[in-house]
Amino acid sequence: MQITVKQAADYLMEKDDILILAHYNPDGDTIGSALALYHCLKRLGKRADVRCGDPIPAKYGYLIQALEPAEFSPACIVAVDVADPMLLGDALSLYADKVDLCIDHHISNTRYARMTVLDADACAAAQVVCQVVRQMGVEGDPDIANAIFTGLSTDTGCFQYANVTAECHRTAALMIEWGADHGMINKLMFGTKSRGRMAAEREILDTLEYHFDGRCAMVTIPYKIRERYGLERGELEGIASIPREIEGVEAGVTLRQIEEDVIRVSLRSGGKVNASEICVRMGGGGHPAAAGCTFRGTVEQARERVLAELEAAFSLI
Amino acid sequence: MQITVKQAADYLMEKDDILILAHYNPDGDTIGSALALYHCLKRLGKRADVRCGDPIPAKYGYLIQALEPAEFSPACIVAVDVADPMLLGDALSLYADKVDLCIDHHISNTRYARMTVLDADACAAAQVVCQVVRQMGVEGDPDIANAIFTGLSTDTGCFQYANVTAECHRTAALMIEWGADHGMINKLMFGTKSRGRMAAEREILDTLEYHFDGRCAMVTIPYKIRERYGLERGELEGIASIPREIEGVEAGVTLRQIEEDVIRVSLRSGGKVNASEICVRMGGGGHPAAAGCTFRGTVEQARERVLAELEAAFSLI
Repeated sequence: MQITVKQAADYLMEKDDILILAHYNPDGDTIGSALALYHCLKRLGKRADVRCGDPIPAKYGYLIQALEPAEFSPACIVAVDVADPMLLGDALSLYADKVDLCIDHHISNTRYARMTVLDADACAAAQVVCQVVRQMGVEGDPDIANAIFTGLSTDTGCFQYANVTAECHRTAALMIEWGADHGMINKLMFGTKSRGRMAAEREILDTLEYHFDGRCAMVTIPYKIRERYGLERGELEGIASIPREIEGVEAGVTLRQIEEDVIRVSLRSGGKVNASEICVRMGGGGHPAAAGCTFRGTVEQARERVLAELEAAFSLI
Repeated sequence: MQITVKQAADYLMEKDDILILAHYNPDGDTIGSALALYHCLKRLGKRADVRCGDPIPAKYGYLIQALEPAEFSPACIVAVDVADPMLLGDALSLYADKVDLCIDHHISNTRYARMTVLDADACAAAQVVCQVVRQMGVEGDPDIANAIFTGLSTDTGCFQYANVTAECHRTAALMIEWGADHGMINKLMFGTKSRGRMAAEREILDTLEYHFDGRCAMVTIPYKIRERYGLERGELEGIASIPREIEGVEAGVTLRQIEEDVIRVSLRSGGKVNASEICVRMGGGGHPAAAGCTFRGTVEQARERVLAELEAAFSLI
């Protein structure tokens, strides 16, 4: 059942012993949304806790440090930024059919929860959580503000992507007024790289090659690069988008060797070629602007196949 | 004379034949501020033009294309984002003592203009220009919005830096409502690199070295790298900040060979060492967090000298 922000707030006001669930492979939005709701419920004198199927990456320590884990039998289960119960992951799969309330911004949400409050125009789930928090009448404070700001900032590439709305910027403004340490958060999320990431980036940049007069740029992410440089999950984020960020590139390709002879192909298009059509032909899928597939063979074979597909696509322009 | 936004708006409402000046080595804020004011004045039926002492970089073409150069004898000269008349550059130095109105956000503004409207809390001059535009009662439109948004976004590293205020985010929200193509602007400013920049970055990253257990990271920018890769002025922006963005780095050093035996040293500190003190000892200056100096000698000699200074500084912590 789709409900309004006010109905969600009224429901939470009545409840206690609330368990908040984040999605596996957690990002700033699911963690920020969960922590914001947690602090809000604590301010109202309720018992609450947050669970995630995967460990929370160390860089979110400034959010997690304020969490006091509690043991209780939950009377109410809330999932935040979780579009599908599969995204709870194995560790939290026992809750998959027990979610009372889902707060989300994904249009693809499968409506698995008993009640769903969804704003598909919101740039982040944290923006919807912010509406619920305000509706509950909780006064803003730095803990809540840092959590919501983290969701907004991380889900928009620091307010860079086209999914940013006027409402997103207005919510960010309010969070700064509530005391969000926005400079610290952005520096940590976007202005900090580990030594391992730097070294991996260098190695990956060294594989950069151009084809078709610079209309295609391609990088190869070597096998076990994360292990070699001791990178956390998610630390290679953004590297796949390097090729398509180069001026004049219509097709950005990333070949990632996930096993000796299994290559994950990511294809991003500037609009002139249809990434989805090419990846579907290679057994994958996606959108016209961004698609992917899994190729069985060597990196060399994957490169040749992708280039052949692109040559055909470019010849039609 | 310091004047208010309202006084500046009243003054401009009375004038015609208005020449708007941007600073040399132009950035998104001075260009965006100038274009926003230009469109505003045109909407009011006035004659106006924009001048800059340097060519406008090609990436700002989406702003400049709407400019219709006009020949007239200016009755009023307005400088935007120009803190000091020196920043007009040689080509516009004839106007240095003739500026009627300066709209700025630099606390260091030398008050050289007959009238100055200054908001040192504003993240960008474009934010102050936006206040003037609104005060003049001009209806917002996409041309004005794109120009102001460009100023806000570029002067804050896409809303990343600590100089961002709630007001800055609110102004960005309003610009989106006025029709700013914010996704396009941010992609162009922050999500696009030229092939030359990619190649230069790769070469510079290859020089990355660590010292003092990773507390110092250093890169060397080789001689004539801009010429070699055909880079525009400003295209190496951001590379100097790479070392200090690495986790655990307290002192980020960039050595840039500007002549065979002249090295420009940039030092950024995370707070534990005083960058200014070190650079003053080397004949330069700056702030505790960011300072620089010009070293006469080889890259090797500059490296040795900086490392000796840093060794002394780290030994005091």
